[in-house]
Amino acid sequence: MFNSYGNIIRLTTFGESHGKAIGGVLDGFPSGVRIDMNYIASEMKKRRPGQSEITSQRDENDDVEFLSGIFEGKTTGCPIAFVVWNKGQKPEDYDDMKNVFRPSHADYTYQLKYGIRDYRGGGRASARETVARVVAGALCKLALRAIGINIRAYTSQVGPIKIGKKYHELDLEEADNNVIRCPDAEKAKEMIDFIKQVKDEGDSIGGVVSCVIKGCPIGLGEPVFCKLHAALGNAMLSINAAKGFEYGNGFEELELKGSEQNDMFYNQGGSITTKSNHSGGIQGGISNGQDIYFNVAFKAPASISKQQDSVDLSGQEKTIKIHGRHDPCILPRAAAVVESMAAITLLDFYLLDKTRQM
Amino acid sequence: MFNSYGNIIRLTTFGESHGKAIGGVLDGFPSGVRIDMNYIASEMKKRRPGQSEITSQRDENDDVEFLSGIFEGKTTGCPIAFVVWNKGQKPEDYDDMKNVFRPSHADYTYQLKYGIRDYRGGGRASARETVARVVAGALCKLALRAIGINIRAYTSQVGPIKIGKKYHELDLEEADNNVIRCPDAEKAKEMIDFIKQVKDEGDSIGGVVSCVIKGCPIGLGEPVFCKLHAALGNAMLSINAAKGFEYGNGFEELELKGSEQNDMFYNQGGSITTKSNHSGGIQGGISNGQDIYFNVAFKAPASISKQQDSVDLSGQEKTIKIHGRHDPCILPRAAAVVESMAAITLLDFYLLDKTRQM
Amino acid sequence: MFNSYGNIIRLTTFGESHGKAIGGVLDGFPSGVRIDMNYIASEMKKRRPGQSEITSQRDENDDVEFLSGIFEGKTTGCPIAFVVWNKGQKPEDYDDMKNVFRPSHADYTYQLKYGIRDYRGGGRASARETVARVVAGALCKLALRAIGINIRAYTSQVGPIKIGKKYHELDLEEADNNVIRCPDAEKAKEMIDFIKQVKDEGDSIGGVVSCVIKGCPIGLGEPVFCKLHAALGNAMLSINAAKGFEYGNGFEELELKGSEQNDMFYNQGGSITTKSNHSGGIQGGISNGQDIYFNVAFKAPASISKQQDSVDLSGQEKTIKIHGRHDPCILPRAAAVVESMAAITLLDFYLLDKTRQM
Amino acid sequence: MFNSYGNIIRLTTFGESHGKAIGGVLDGFPSGVRIDMNYIASEMKKRRPGQSEITSQRDENDDVEFLSGIFEGKTTGCPIAFVVWNKGQKPEDYDDMKNVFRPSHADYTYQLKYGIRDYRGGGRASARETVARVVAGALCKLALRAIGINIRAYTSQVGPIKIGKKYHELDLEEADNNVIRCPDAEKAKEMIDFIKQVKDEGDSIGGVVSCVIKGCPIGLGEPVFCKLHAALGNAMLSINAAKGFEYGNGFEELELKGSEQNDMFYNQGGSITTKSNHSGGIQGGISNGQDIYFNVAFKAPASISKQQDSVDLSGQEKTIKIHGRHDPCILPRAAAVVESMAAITLLDFYLLDKTRQM
Repeated sequence: MFNSYGNIIRLTTFGESHGKAIGGVLDGFPSGVRIDMNYIASEMKKRRPGQSEITSQRDENDDVEFLSGIFEGKTTGCPIAFVVWNKGQKPEDYDDMKNVFRPSHADYTYQLKYGIRDYRGGGRASARETVARVVAGALCKLALRAIGINIRAYTSQVGPIKIGKKYHELDLEEADNNVIRCPDAEKAKEMIDFIKQVKDEGDSIGGVVSCVIKGCPIGLGEPVFCKLHAALGNAMLSINAAKGFEYGNGFEELELKGSEQNDMFYNQGGSITTKSNHSGGIQGGISNGQDIYFNVAFKAPASISKQQDSVDLSGQEKTIKIHGRHDPCILPRAAAVVESMAAITLLDFYLLDKTRQM
Repeated sequence: MFNSYGNIIRLTTFGESHGKAIGGVLDGFPSGVRIDMNYIASEMKKRRPGQSEITSQRDENDDVEFLSGIFEGKTTGCPIAFVVWNKGQKPEDYDDMKNVFRPSHADYTYQLKYGIRDYRGGGRASARETVARVVAGALCKLALRAIGINIRAYTSQVGPIKIGKKYHELDLEEADNNVIRCPDAEKAKEMIDFIKQVKDEGDSIGGVVSCVIKGCPIGLGEPVFCKLHAALGNAMLSINAAKGFEYGNGFEELELKGSEQNDMFYNQGGSITTKSNHSGGIQGGISNGQDIYFNVAFKAPASISKQQDSVDLSGQEKTIKIHGRHDPCILPRAAAVVESMAAITLLDFYLLDKTRQM
Repeated sequence: MFNSYGNIIRLTTFGESHGKAIGGVLDGFPSGVRIDMNYIASEMKKRRPGQSEITSQRDENDDVEFLSGIFEGKTTGCPIAFVVWNKGQKPEDYDDMKNVFRPSHADYTYQLKYGIRDYRGGGRASARETVARVVAGALCKLALRAIGINIRAYTSQVGPIKIGKKYHELDLEEADNNVIRCPDAEKAKEMIDFIKQVKDEGDSIGGVVSCVIKGCPIGLGEPVFCKLHAALGNAMLSINAAKGFEYGNGFEELELKGSEQNDMFYNQGGSITTKSNHSGGIQGGISNGQDIYFNVAFKAPASISKQQDSVDLSGQEKTIKIHGRHDPCILPRAAAVVESMAAITLLDFYLLDKTRQM
Repeated sequence: MFNSYGNIIRLTTFGESHGKAIGGVLDGFPSGVRIDMNYIASEMKKRRPGQSEITSQRDENDDVEFLSGIFEGKTTGCPIAFVVWNKGQKPEDYDDMKNVFRPSHADYTYQLKYGIRDYRGGGRASARETVARVVAGALCKLALRAIGINIRAYTSQVGPIKIGKKYHELDLEEADNNVIRCPDAEKAKEMIDFIKQVKDEGDSIGGVVSCVIKGCPIGLGEPVFCKLHAALGNAMLSINAAKGFEYGNGFEELELKGSEQNDMFYNQGGSITTKSNHSGGIQGGISNGQDIYFNVAFKAPASISKQQDSVDLSGQEKTIKIHGRHDPCILPRAAAVVESMAAITLLDFYLLDKTRQM
């Protein structure tokens, strides 16, 4: 519990935003998987700040140092520990917040829960923690690739601007062609302009990351308390600023009746498939071989440069302006984390499924 | 994993829809809690079918037999096992589905995953499993009551009909006054009429259950992978037919900017509180003392009497009409399950929080 | 934790000695395993009291009622719940102990830990709980049998009487031919005579159960904190009255130097094997294909009819004579529990090992 | 599972003998505990090689670098990650063993289980892994100290030489006065002489580490599958080279009858205590406030410089002489690991016990 995720595959992350390092231990990873360090670096880049004008300008180091579990280029089945060293942090940016609680951050709840908190940059509650998830996610993607599972996340909503198309109406590869990671070029431009405007106001904005998993074999997921979609929901809701999760047609098409919503089976040239996929590739908590797709809502980042009302440790009312180089919109970087958490979950359930028959 | 839920409190459920019994074992429950059997019976009644014309007319037995863990009216700290015997089931209703997969049910995925399935009434995948969760939920509510935590779920949307009011604009007790459990009498009537119409068509409809938790102490929830809202999301998504979860303002108000969304702190007569509660009572995964509120989307039940296309075990295309007495809308009964899963989660995190300081 | 055991396979037991029933839920059991009810009954008989003059004369009902997870004679992959109803208990035998703590029983520690206890027959702490382990063990043995794993436990010491031979010098099947389950007929007679004498004195005696696992494939067990022998040790030490565990040559041959102790490899007709097996079939926590063997020490049962000194709830000194029909020696019945816990552990690790490579 | 230990407190270790580092993450540690770095260094020294002529002459670096979870000298409740960098390793010492399996090491089982192994110095199976346990143990000891729990391990047997006294007949502090950590000066000398002789022969020897825990509060441990002694047994058997565990009078006094073995209660000036302590401070799996004591058997280290028979990867028979600077006897260093695993277990159960009542 606490800082670990997964059943067979188990990722434990550690580290604070302005401590020595962020890192993780990925235990239970299968042996014999070849690790491509260039691939990992390319995955890290997707999450890295400082890449465009719509994300934080911080130039965070995201180089990964592996400490164990890989030998002569392959995984050994032993825990894979890794560290991303914190460099160029500016703790002095956070002196103001030593005593004052930033609204809608975790400052207040950490202080009251633990009686102590590392206030520098949000400490453990900082989204920098997700760097460890992307390392683990990249490792899992390498394993999943070998069995044909492909995961792709993209931005489908920024504030009031919605993409307005379903995933199968889009060429998801297009998401790589713009900084907001939206596979519709026109909507992408609107979103980017909107974020720039919000940023200029010293404000922030949220939205939706959508994710599609193709090639998932039938049978992943366990009934009742280990349903695949519940695990995915848990994984996504563990990402900083996540406020909601839905899969298949989720909240969106609740006006559909059973007869409109049910995915009828048919025989497509010898193999059983469904005419529609409102189920989002999961029935009874178990993958059915169709595409898995889901949405994750992310709120506007709590760090804004506008003046806000707050209180300090003693309960005294204060105003606060948050300095530093913050993300006006977390979505383009969150997409990488969504993919990573999906990859860890899928590999975990793939391995778990191996145990269900002798 | 699999059929267990929780960390300290651990509910394991068992049983199939048309097997001997549905039951559960609730381990880790604290000792010394007085158990009021009348209260448990009243909680069970909330979930029971056959209570109105908008739910299934089945007259399921929901009497609970406790087998262990309670001595002289109090819990002993030992596992509490309980059984609800299956009586008056009509397995012959399900002969048709022995070989044909019901669309959007778990028949197909179970068959392919396990190579075998108890096809009678959906077997383990039946929503009858949730009867065990309501027993456990009732026990947990009794423990939570003593520390002032109160949980209330209600129907806020049926198909296209939305309640259109926030929880604090409603008198939630009103939900007990109608069979759809909607605290707005006018909307309740609309919803009920709509469900009757859907039922007459041999069809089904989904919607949203909303839930509010009052009196939650500050500090429940653990950072990173054990966030309170992620645990609640996992719990809710484990309920049959759940398609989405959102807390605070979730997917609904993503157009709000950070400055509009952040919950500013102020000092209310000596105690720190927030001016708004967009966070839904949880910041950084930890409860902040404000009301916790969330929504759960439930799809239209997959069992409809309309004719549907499908295939059988051999891949042969077939049409299927599902007989039996099914729920045209699961919402009024699902509310009881939502409350129960929330109660188990809250008690679990309450106990877990005790370990965070010496 | 608490009342559950296992990783993939997870047995949760419940019930008190004089409550309604003892039972369990075995979750994670693979699907498609054919269940032979006669075999299960025969396994239960091994543990049952009332079978000879050296065990308790209680005529406990040990009939198992399965509630779920088995369909048309095969496991479904869903949780297997089962119950053994308590019948013919005589709670009035235990009125004396309502207020007085029996020496070396769990009465005192339960009372102080939980503030409440079911004092009838030891409640949850009674060795009757192990009936649930034997049910689960029998199911696991059926699965293990199919992959050629065979487990055999026997009595190797009673009080001062030791068998004096290693397992490979014995015909272990001989253990079935006497009531103490010792495969050396002569020693068996000595042991039985000794127990009769102890029983006549109103006293009790302990000893050692040895266990041998043949046919275990190479590779079961996980390094560091999930070593096969540590899991076996944990399992055995969870049995009532267990005081010690050793595997391979354990405590016995610590005078052996490395050169005498190491198991040298050689090539036996094309397959790698070892010249000796001091390791007990486990190296680095992982099975190496040789026989696994271990010993479990059981103390003399705490329930004796001799008068003993004690105190009551208020701290008042009292004398106590424990009535009822107790086992003067637990070993013959403990052997069945040792085999069961070994079987659960082996199947768990067999399934776990499937996840270590893609 | 795999590389993690504990329930609330959860230690995950990582690293290979000749990789970059050995380290760990200690999650679930309570917040607000002051960390004394000098104390940790002094604990590390107990386990460090190169300190005497009877242990390995390797000069391993054992300096700990903490990466997270400690802020301004106190724990924050967030995961405590730490690393001990591997320096001055001589991987070339291990070129011989790339293809040849060292007898009674984990080379063969790792190779067959994972299909790959880091052969340098035993890789993950090396006892160097225990350095991470001593770091975690030292942290836990600091927390336990504050609640008055004291843990002390010592060498009580080396090969055929036994201490011959019970722990309460000894001044355990004396163990610090000699390199074998035996609190009986005379026996210590015999043991040391014996080890020197074994070392000169190029051989190795095992023995027993005894451990005593004083000041343990009543009520730690959970019934059935989470018994305190079973958890201690599991912890001890997870230490490299451990072959057996016994607590209380264990295997040693099985000739005692119930009437001789039972610990009678009496009222000692108002508080309930026992006249004897054969139970070893644990009854029914729960601590009873008396001293907890147990023994751990360690085999002779498998690394010896004498020539041994073996086979290589292809099954070809080979002889092997293991070079490097190995421990002729692991006991003095193992004592530190025994204390550490006991400390982690005790703190874990202390925290767990907090959840058993509301």
